[in-house]
Amino acid sequence: MAPPPAATPAADAPPPPADRLAAARTAYASTADTVRSLRSSSACDAAELSAAEARLRALRVELSAAQGEADMADGTAAAAAAASEATFSRAGVASLLRRRFFYSPAFDIYGGVSGLYDYGPPACAVKNNVVALWRQHFVLEEGMLELEGTCLTPEPVLKTSGHVDKFTDLLVEDAVTGAPYRADHLLEEHLVAAMEGGKLTAERAEAAASLRARLDELDEDAMAAALTEWEVKAPETDNALTTPYAFNLMFKTQIGPKAGVVGYLRPETAQGIFVNFKRLLDYNGGRMPFAAAQIGLSFRNEISPRAGVLRVREFLQAEIEHFVHPQHKEHPKFAGVAGRVVNLFPREQQLTTRVAVPMSVGDAVAAGTIANETLGYFIARTDMFAEKMGLNLEHVRFRQHLEHEMAHYASDCWDLEVNTSYRWIECAGIADRACFDLTSHSVAAKTELTVREVFDTPQTDELWVAAPNKGALGKAFKRDAQKIMASLAAADQDTLAAYAATHAAGNPVTVAVDGGLASGDPSAVVDPAMLAFKRVTQTIHGRNYYPSVVEPSFGIGRLLYCLWEHAYFVRPAGDGGAAAEGSETNAPPAAVLRLPAEVAPVKVILLPLMRQAVFNDRLHEAADAFREAGLSARLDDSGQSIGRRYARADEVGTPFGVTVDHKTVEDGSITVRDRDTTAQVRCPSIAAAVEVVRRCCAGLGTWADVSAEYPGVVAAADADAPAA
Amino acid sequence: MAPPPAATPAADAPPPPADRLAAARTAYASTADTVRSLRSSSACDAAELSAAEARLRALRVELSAAQGEADMADGTAAAAAAASEATFSRAGVASLLRRRFFYSPAFDIYGGVSGLYDYGPPACAVKNNVVALWRQHFVLEEGMLELEGTCLTPEPVLKTSGHVDKFTDLLVEDAVTGAPYRADHLLEEHLVAAMEGGKLTAERAEAAASLRARLDELDEDAMAAALTEWEVKAPETDNALTTPYAFNLMFKTQIGPKAGVVGYLRPETAQGIFVNFKRLLDYNGGRMPFAAAQIGLSFRNEISPRAGVLRVREFLQAEIEHFVHPQHKEHPKFAGVAGRVVNLFPREQQLTTRVAVPMSVGDAVAAGTIANETLGYFIARTDMFAEKMGLNLEHVRFRQHLEHEMAHYASDCWDLEVNTSYRWIECAGIADRACFDLTSHSVAAKTELTVREVFDTPQTDELWVAAPNKGALGKAFKRDAQKIMASLAAADQDTLAAYAATHAAGNPVTVAVDGGLASGDPSAVVDPAMLAFKRVTQTIHGRNYYPSVVEPSFGIGRLLYCLWEHAYFVRPAGDGGAAAEGSETNAPPAAVLRLPAEVAPVKVILLPLMRQAVFNDRLHEAADAFREAGLSARLDDSGQSIGRRYARADEVGTPFGVTVDHKTVEDGSITVRDRDTTAQVRCPSIAAAVEVVRRCCAGLGTWADVSAEYPGVVAAADADAPAA
Repeated sequence: MAPPPAATPAADAPPPPADRLAAARTAYASTADTVRSLRSSSACDAAELSAAEARLRALRVELSAAQGEADMADGTAAAAAAASEATFSRAGVASLLRRRFFYSPAFDIYGGVSGLYDYGPPACAVKNNVVALWRQHFVLEEGMLELEGTCLTPEPVLKTSGHVDKFTDLLVEDAVTGAPYRADHLLEEHLVAAMEGGKLTAERAEAAASLRARLDELDEDAMAAALTEWEVKAPETDNALTTPYAFNLMFKTQIGPKAGVVGYLRPETAQGIFVNFKRLLDYNGGRMPFAAAQIGLSFRNEISPRAGVLRVREFLQAEIEHFVHPQHKEHPKFAGVAGRVVNLFPREQQLTTRVAVPMSVGDAVAAGTIANETLGYFIARTDMFAEKMGLNLEHVRFRQHLEHEMAHYASDCWDLEVNTSYRWIECAGIADRACFDLTSHSVAAKTELTVREVFDTPQTDELWVAAPNKGALGKAFKRDAQKIMASLAAADQDTLAAYAATHAAGNPVTVAVDGGLASGDPSAVVDPAMLAFKRVTQTIHGRNYYPSVVEPSFGIGRLLYCLWEHAYFVRPAGDGGAAAEGSETNAPPAAVLRLPAEVAPVKVILLPLMRQAVFNDRLHEAADAFREAGLSARLDDSGQSIGRRYARADEVGTPFGVTVDHKTVEDGSITVRDRDTTAQVRCPSIAAAVEVVRRCCAGLGTWADVSAEYPGVVAAADADAPAA
Repeated sequence: MAPPPAATPAADAPPPPADRLAAARTAYASTADTVRSLRSSSACDAAELSAAEARLRALRVELSAAQGEADMADGTAAAAAAASEATFSRAGVASLLRRRFFYSPAFDIYGGVSGLYDYGPPACAVKNNVVALWRQHFVLEEGMLELEGTCLTPEPVLKTSGHVDKFTDLLVEDAVTGAPYRADHLLEEHLVAAMEGGKLTAERAEAAASLRARLDELDEDAMAAALTEWEVKAPETDNALTTPYAFNLMFKTQIGPKAGVVGYLRPETAQGIFVNFKRLLDYNGGRMPFAAAQIGLSFRNEISPRAGVLRVREFLQAEIEHFVHPQHKEHPKFAGVAGRVVNLFPREQQLTTRVAVPMSVGDAVAAGTIANETLGYFIARTDMFAEKMGLNLEHVRFRQHLEHEMAHYASDCWDLEVNTSYRWIECAGIADRACFDLTSHSVAAKTELTVREVFDTPQTDELWVAAPNKGALGKAFKRDAQKIMASLAAADQDTLAAYAATHAAGNPVTVAVDGGLASGDPSAVVDPAMLAFKRVTQTIHGRNYYPSVVEPSFGIGRLLYCLWEHAYFVRPAGDGGAAAEGSETNAPPAAVLRLPAEVAPVKVILLPLMRQAVFNDRLHEAADAFREAGLSARLDDSGQSIGRRYARADEVGTPFGVTVDHKTVEDGSITVRDRDTTAQVRCPSIAAAVEVVRRCCAGLGTWADVSAEYPGVVAAADADAPAA
């Protein structure tokens, strides 16, 4: 049966969402290609590039709007939200983090300050362990040079980096109360509410979607116009809003007394590495490539931070700056990681399937999907780190920046994104920043931050050299003659070529004089008879070049938050090794953090079977043994049931439980319980139990090995209990 | 033979220096006794105490002046300066630290900022190792609760702690240029120059010495007067100075946009622990005593910092707050450290012999020299830490604060002082701060930071209870009656006792009314007929108390600086394992940092005997093996002579050198060199060499063990060299 003829759409009806999306993707991809090729072209026309970039931004807005429409039409948006809720338990995690003092709102007995959180003992310990793991995984393994700069930073450094001028968000205030808001957040909330309210005309809904897609591009005027057009009011009071203005997100202070230096708290740790480049290169014996790393606090004065510990005003960064020859971005250890399969979400997939693809890093570099080996190397190493620290790699991906997201100088950039109840969170970025940072600081600080490259075989080159007639110049220019000759000697090749051409034509040469003439004139007009220009052949043994920088940059606090969501699960009621827990066979459902032993805050919980003096000697013997082995142990002799005490330890992710029971008192044997399986074994001695825990925490063994080596215990504690 | 009769001093001649000093000591000690006993008396008369404290301050000035005079007279001052120069090499250390990038002046390519230093790779690595050691030694061993608060701190917290009002230095400016100076430093320099100039009359010299002794006590007016009297000018310009004023040493900033919170960068980490006391106690299951710890940055906006890395504006602190019952300051682990002999410099020795005395901590607590076991425990543990991190204990002492140095609330305080070319540097303080901090925050934040103490046996107590006649009060006071009854119910026992006494005498009772009466009167005069007061017997099961705080507080940066001076030595010319180094038998004198392996920045330097491709495979095999074992290794294939490469590694304190030579290529055996002795052994395999280094770095073995196990090598590298 022949299909019915397709309904011909009315000439002025909008295209179906799927068609619109397809068209938007095609247009974006083609313009992105243009932008990319213009950027990489050495003879790039600035005006042409700028026009192409503007087209790309517009197309990106259309793409985003089309995407949104298609998602609503085919149910993708709803499905994604539902999947996120089913997978992660934001409320359960939040309750656990609060209840067990992972965090507290800083200074809350004084009313608190939004965007500042203290790390309580469990989170502080995990943070320290993750930092140690990071240092081991990156700094030690790669032989990186770690340094530590100061948080206080004088203004000129951050002027050069662009933060003084551009590190801003738009702020509006309640015109009556003065309460501050981030303009883009307010506007977005307003637009979403309007769209969901369903009272907009199709045209207005389209305008709202389009505006929403380009919120981050609005400057002060455009934002002011949008707020007025959409009649946005202050949310709590419904008062009018003031005109938006750019608010710098750096904390400003004054270093030294009143004649002091204007300073800021650094917004990133990277600059502290760049300004030390010369010393680092020297420390490395002048060898390239090499990497420097820094772990330290950074600060951002968010206007009105809300998303809990994900958007804070003071946070720990771990950054690497890998310095590499701009034409040789191979990595010596790339072969060792080329086979690593990671979830890549390249530009093309973002524009088509919208699904990350598992791909080996080697293939991705070979295909040109990842721009070079060094980037690929760090993507693979970052993926390995994410796994080691306990993230679930099914919910980890590397998303490539779309063309319009990248800084003009960057050649490629990938974000480590982790899926959580907040959807995909950017936790690290791995960017090829080319030579932008070192050239900027070189110019601003008048210090050449370059590397000396010695050619394998010396090159010869033809050069212009000025040969002034000293006597004639001296006569004509008197005191200025010396300055003119110095300026000629210092002139670059392009300038000398231009002078030579003028000279060859028999015309007077206008020589720009460094510092100007005595008369105040900036240049001297020199008679051609007083000058000569020659071509000389010179052997060049090397050159100075600005290295490229590949920057993997990690936000430790965000990684930790993702870890809590990935590690969290609820053990069903009645489960939980309850068989071993006497009366606790009907244990209530209990939260567990399945943290890797290496990063767990406490490695072992020490429990007496019950609160009786008979267990004390063995308990303290065990406590001493674990501490001497460098394994953090906590004692819980609170008198609660053993099931409840296990559950409390599970909540903070303690991987092992060691229980002193009557048999321990008799013969020194002792049980070890595994958090994840709740299975138990009996070790013949405290020393054996310490060794079990030590090996598992150092990654030298697994619980499967332990179960194979020592006899399992079922209801051992239970069997002993009646004897007490 | 009878001694000649002593010359009788003229009636108005000053006493000889020794007599004056003895008199000053006696007077100070006796007044200090008075102050101490007044402070500890519960019925202390505030006026009496204040008068005694003022006398003590005056006596301290006399003591200091007498001390100075005596030191000059008997040559002690000159001898001490000479001894310091002979023992430590400030210039050698400074040169090494600069040359090998231990530090750099922060942002120096932009001209730098005084008081800010970056840690380069070697110092950063040692700092991290010392912090890890501190965490292991204190936090892990003691089961302390580590937390991490924010540097940004809102004003009210630091108002409570006293920093907003009192954390100041006096500042004067050059009246013409505005250049700022610390007033006390300027005045001191001026006084010293005047005294050394030798042109002062005896009376003026005496006045100068006396003034110098109390520089830290001068308030703004006294400082202004002193600067005028001594005609102090700006040092560089000889301009007049402005009037001194108090400059707050905290960095101020604004948290959030313009309606935001006034904040400071914390000047110490301690407050972040106090404000979390309730959560910490809860996390510890309500059990006392317990300790919390914090390692983090603190900031002080020094007026014009000069003493290099010893006085900086941003520095790392490690602080412990040990919370303990105020009447039970025993420490459960005290017996384990009581035998530790430490260099104590108690008040009495400071006033008499001026020499620290080695004494066991147990004896010192028993004798009352150290006020309690908890203080003694931390003094012993701190001494052990100082030893582990590599300080020379001959140059470490614990100096007790003299009475006038202690805060009025503190009950005892000892500083860890380390001797260097700068003389004795305060690197840590261990203070019993009583309950000052928790009570202050409780009052200011209206949150009771107390501990619930349950008595072993309930106590019974007789209490006053008010029994008002509600009807009569209601009739007489109408709407105010309710308030009066509430105030009676809330009155404390002393107040009630006073009311009862008035009432018993048949007089009207003036009841202070919380919030005042409707009429505005603050109290109500109540007819005795409307009231009754009864004694009731009540059983008290427990009480809430404010714990005392014992605070060990460490300045990590200062400890590191002292470590460099203690670890530094110069190996004589021709020494240096030169025998093994072929042509280097006449090696020049070379600086060595004798750092403990555990804190050394790099554990092993890997060297090919010379720069030849034949060594590469073994070199990389060794590099991988060390890194896999978690031991930081650096490769030096720079092509310099092996002696020079050893020397470069010695300079940054690398404890072991591993050299790949021809024999390694042949049979896999490899040499290990010890930094301190320059002796070498040959291990049969790379794995064996890794194990040697691992054991020594973990404190599980010494070089003596290694030498006993493996054959020594003399000139092995040398012997191999000709074969190359």
